[in-house]
Amino acid sequence: MRLYAYWRSSCSYRARIALALKGLSVEIVSVPLLDGEQMQAGFTAKNPSQQVPVLELDDGTLLGQSIAIMEYLDEVHPEPPILPRDPVARARCRQLTEVINSGVQPMQNHYVLTRLREEHGVDAKVHSIHFIDRGLRAYEALAERTAGAFSVGDTPTIADCALVPQLYNARRFGMDVAKDYPRLHAIDARCAELEAFQVAHPDRQPDAPSEGER
Amino acid sequence: MRLYAYWRSSCSYRARIALALKGLSVEIVSVPLLDGEQMQAGFTAKNPSQQVPVLELDDGTLLGQSIAIMEYLDEVHPEPPILPRDPVARARCRQLTEVINSGVQPMQNHYVLTRLREEHGVDAKVHSIHFIDRGLRAYEALAERTAGAFSVGDTPTIADCALVPQLYNARRFGMDVAKDYPRLHAIDARCAELEAFQVAHPDRQPDAPSEGER
Repeated sequence: MRLYAYWRSSCSYRARIALALKGLSVEIVSVPLLDGEQMQAGFTAKNPSQQVPVLELDDGTLLGQSIAIMEYLDEVHPEPPILPRDPVARARCRQLTEVINSGVQPMQNHYVLTRLREEHGVDAKVHSIHFIDRGLRAYEALAERTAGAFSVGDTPTIADCALVPQLYNARRFGMDVAKDYPRLHAIDARCAELEAFQVAHPDRQPDAPSEGER
Repeated sequence: MRLYAYWRSSCSYRARIALALKGLSVEIVSVPLLDGEQMQAGFTAKNPSQQVPVLELDDGTLLGQSIAIMEYLDEVHPEPPILPRDPVARARCRQLTEVINSGVQPMQNHYVLTRLREEHGVDAKVHSIHFIDRGLRAYEALAERTAGAFSVGDTPTIADCALVPQLYNARRFGMDVAKDYPRLHAIDARCAELEAFQVAHPDRQPDAPSEGER
């Protein structure tokens, strides 16, 4: 399998964590978003949404959207599970995942912020921090009902795959995760101990710039 | 079961369609978003995200996020299915659903547009139309690979549950769906023939204003 991805894309980061949790190795193909390669015809043919990640299966099937990719991986490679087995727990896990996926990440992705800045003069940082804070506060409250060592129970799920990249982004915007979202900070620290989260980190990707240039 | 919903909320509309496709009847509890009831403590305790829909199960369990609700319904009430059974087809169905759910709807929901207008002076209509068009064009291209009579194959799925409310919103913003997205227009017309889509329509909800006041 191949994963079309960009080192700092938080949705690519989610897919990398899920693949690593499943013990699946893939070829990473870099799509340099800042150069606009996702807008070119070659990539648009792979994903008309012009977004990463895209998972290419061995038969050439192309799957976009990180949520769809993670659910697919859990169905085709069920061990270890990255969704709970109980239907209510699964729903809560997906609810947490969507708090990030539809409630936060879209507000502060590269394309949206560029558009808001260039067309409407919006301060991208102010806009991003507002929605990140709003989503993380909701996640913190919801996780009180679901969390064990991780967001839902005591093993990592797709909710953690969404949370950890979002916290990475929050810190890039200068937010104080440890102070304002202590439960999420603790979950994040537990994730950081796992190799799957370590190897998926943006800084460890082949297209990451060297440390001094980040 | 109870569904906390608002007649014109497109995410509430999705959940209503899915419930109706499953033949499940629920008590609808109106949450008047324009009056800010979702921000009050009573509702925030039910959903810290301060969003509708919320599905309340008979034992009091509360489930938020329309995607999580639709997936839950398909797991607990498997007939008729609203996701394909084949893993690749399921992934494509979820991909289409997320093109709307994370790519379009968040950009033009009530809370986000209010914030953009009040804090940043953004023209809500221009902003909304840009992102609706971007998402619907991607959906139109992706559906070429998946559609039969409906978005994925010949029976309605969660992708149609997301698409139809988004097209309803597109028309509210004055967009010409028939002209610009002919495949989606045709799918929408087929959905409109089904009773499940008819009874879920905003205008048919108990909290919808009378026709002259909409």
